[in-house]
Amino acid sequence: MVKRLSDAEVQSRMPSIAAWKRTGDLIEREFAFPDFVAAMRFVHRVAAEAERTQHHPDIHVLYNRVRLGYSTHDAGGLSERDFTAAIAVDRLLAG
Amino acid sequence: MVKRLSDAEVQSRMPSIAAWKRTGDLIEREFAFPDFVAAMRFVHRVAAEAERTQHHPDIHVLYNRVRLGYSTHDAGGLSERDFTAAIAVDRLLAG
Repeated sequence: MVKRLSDAEVQSRMPSIAAWKRTGDLIEREFAFPDFVAAMRFVHRVAAEAERTQHHPDIHVLYNRVRLGYSTHDAGGLSERDFTAAIAVDRLLAG
Repeated sequence: MVKRLSDAEVQSRMPSIAAWKRTGDLIEREFAFPDFVAAMRFVHRVAAEAERTQHHPDIHVLYNRVRLGYSTHDAGGLSERDFTAAIAVDRLLAG
């Protein structure tokens, strides 16, 4: 069972993922790429990471833009896993 | 320039894509798969078809569910291309 973070715990972790915003029980970020192919290449890498960690984001592709949202449904809110995943995605982009 | 279909033209084409629903200027369908990997496999095939035809759907992945939406932004609404694409996706699933 994954522990749901309290509101204060979520707030304290948000600066570690400065490009993400919180919307209720979701942390979200939108990414822009040169084109659809580049966007899908990123989606593939995110999907592989999601399978590896067994933590899957909502993925929304609008041509060259990709919106990712993490939440921990088992915990009924945001958990440490969402922040770990968001940081991993940020690293994918940096690497 | 792609021609926007009139409301009557859209209505007359909807029976050819019975599993899709129209929401304003969008035709949408949701697909369910056994798991995330199967859902992403489908997304890859849809993406390849989208690149081939240069007509890209909005793609929304929620774990094992994939929602596709087609619209023709250049036409400011629905065009023949959206129906052709929806039929091609239906065939992907059948094949």
